[in-house]
Amino acid sequence: MAVTLKDVAERANVSRSAVSRTFTDGASVSEKMRRKVEKAAQELGYSPNALASSLTTGRTKLIGLVSNNFHNPIFLEVFDKFTRRLQDKGLRPLLVNLSDEIDPKNSVRMLRQYSVDGVVVASSTLPPGFAKAFKDAGVPVVHSFGRSSPTPQVHVVGIDNVECGRMAARTLLARGYKNVAFLGGPETATSTQDRFDGFLSEMANQTGVTYSHSFADAYSFEAGRSEMLRLLQNAPADAYFCGDDVLSIGALSAIREQGLRVPEDIGIIGLNDMEMARWQSNDLTTIHQPIEQIVNSSIELVVAMLDEPERYPEARIFPCHVVERGTLRPPQQHP
Amino acid sequence: MAVTLKDVAERANVSRSAVSRTFTDGASVSEKMRRKVEKAAQELGYSPNALASSLTTGRTKLIGLVSNNFHNPIFLEVFDKFTRRLQDKGLRPLLVNLSDEIDPKNSVRMLRQYSVDGVVVASSTLPPGFAKAFKDAGVPVVHSFGRSSPTPQVHVVGIDNVECGRMAARTLLARGYKNVAFLGGPETATSTQDRFDGFLSEMANQTGVTYSHSFADAYSFEAGRSEMLRLLQNAPADAYFCGDDVLSIGALSAIREQGLRVPEDIGIIGLNDMEMARWQSNDLTTIHQPIEQIVNSSIELVVAMLDEPERYPEARIFPCHVVERGTLRPPQQHP
Repeated sequence: MAVTLKDVAERANVSRSAVSRTFTDGASVSEKMRRKVEKAAQELGYSPNALASSLTTGRTKLIGLVSNNFHNPIFLEVFDKFTRRLQDKGLRPLLVNLSDEIDPKNSVRMLRQYSVDGVVVASSTLPPGFAKAFKDAGVPVVHSFGRSSPTPQVHVVGIDNVECGRMAARTLLARGYKNVAFLGGPETATSTQDRFDGFLSEMANQTGVTYSHSFADAYSFEAGRSEMLRLLQNAPADAYFCGDDVLSIGALSAIREQGLRVPEDIGIIGLNDMEMARWQSNDLTTIHQPIEQIVNSSIELVVAMLDEPERYPEARIFPCHVVERGTLRPPQQHP
Repeated sequence: MAVTLKDVAERANVSRSAVSRTFTDGASVSEKMRRKVEKAAQELGYSPNALASSLTTGRTKLIGLVSNNFHNPIFLEVFDKFTRRLQDKGLRPLLVNLSDEIDPKNSVRMLRQYSVDGVVVASSTLPPGFAKAFKDAGVPVVHSFGRSSPTPQVHVVGIDNVECGRMAARTLLARGYKNVAFLGGPETATSTQDRFDGFLSEMANQTGVTYSHSFADAYSFEAGRSEMLRLLQNAPADAYFCGDDVLSIGALSAIREQGLRVPEDIGIIGLNDMEMARWQSNDLTTIHQPIEQIVNSSIELVVAMLDEPERYPEARIFPCHVVERGTLRPPQQHP
């Protein structure tokens, strides 16, 4: 038979309200009282039930975490950080896999059926309209890794991808590369478009430098590898800005399979700085995207929206920086 | 204002029961009726609410997916397959991150607070008692990737790790390696212990073969790399059975950093056959663990337990096989 709040109150010899406050996040209760209640609860095997409490609060404490790419290792880090942070806050992370789903209507319907309090869309490839569809359906939503905009329609947390494209271009130029290229992710992804725009805008001001571009089918190892194999059949560039780290690692594989050396023959710079970029076998020079800050800020925002559903949309943009490793030649010296 | 079941029934000009049956998994309703109801529901923006339905059924349709390793890329595949399959069945995957948690009592309390219908513990490193703690607390539980036993106390779905250890040993012997070793995962993990037992039992019958063993701190790239760097300081073996693929990839990195070649100088065989094992830069010979079958079977079992909580515990064990790639020398010819 289930142990009730009343049982715990009697055992601890305290009021029911004291037990309730002990198990309510943010409610005021003295440390002494908390210890007394927790001791009694533990002895009786009592645990407050999220379903029961959702009936009184109208909240389920479920936060939907929506992803559409389970082939990019960066998302294991994203899931790790999201689940830890939500758990710390007493929230429950519901993982939603949209890999096969492209119609936002179906996703909105699914999330509404799931009775989530709010949704974090964690994707740089879904269009802005996707998160907007949740908002229109009355579901609090934050778009992590989404496109920043001067007039965001939903809350966006991420990086300035245009600036990252410029940063990659400047990094290649500072190392004296004269024939450079962008090997982007899928052309339809906002992150690809923005990184490409930044790359182009920096290159347009240069003289004596040639540049080109192409796109991979997906942010995946295989897509990066096969696009680089194709590029190597003609005269390849001296250095590539690859759309992200997993594309970079695919490109590195292609280059080495063809008997070429990195960075001696071809240089590579990626974007994300995922764990695997640090692996000595990759040793990838890349642009660091502050995943943990983006995750924490996204959760902060979605939680704030629970109390303030009409909160004015904002974009929270975090700076990135280049991490020097072994896939670009050193900066040129100007004595 | 929320659209109700009654609104949909009126719009579709059908009974409320017909609407209810349309949105109940497995309930009988004609195709014509279903189309009528779904059309009306779509026009009104109606979606049945899991929270509301859980009040009448006593079920939340939440299945807890418990993991304690977010640094092993195999788990991205596990999460992908779990979420797809649960979604297909109209269930909701709640991801639980136990990376920092070792006390099963806290985890049980957390999962009970989460109001899950059942739990899948997806880990080869948590002890059998961990899943048992959920069972004792009255939570339906399946231990995926757990230790098989002739007398399992909870449902276990996975592979015969002892047999995998034997298979790895036989594979190395068939290729004529005379000085072989086991580079295992953490010594406390049942998967490590069982793979080691199988490896030893096969080696004990051999003459003219020397063998040794050591253990890495975790199933991670860094742990595999640093253990292999240590081994390379003395006379290393000719070939290693590494406890899993991510350890293998760490070991490969260490070997190549030291200027040695694979498989010419040292051979490696892993276990899992994760996506990354296929990457051309790894090209890892490994033992294939049928992840998809294990995931599907685990979900089948946990769903069956919802209707039959006292279901007699069973172990579902799936066969593995060696996948030939480039990190072992070819089998010896016996002309």
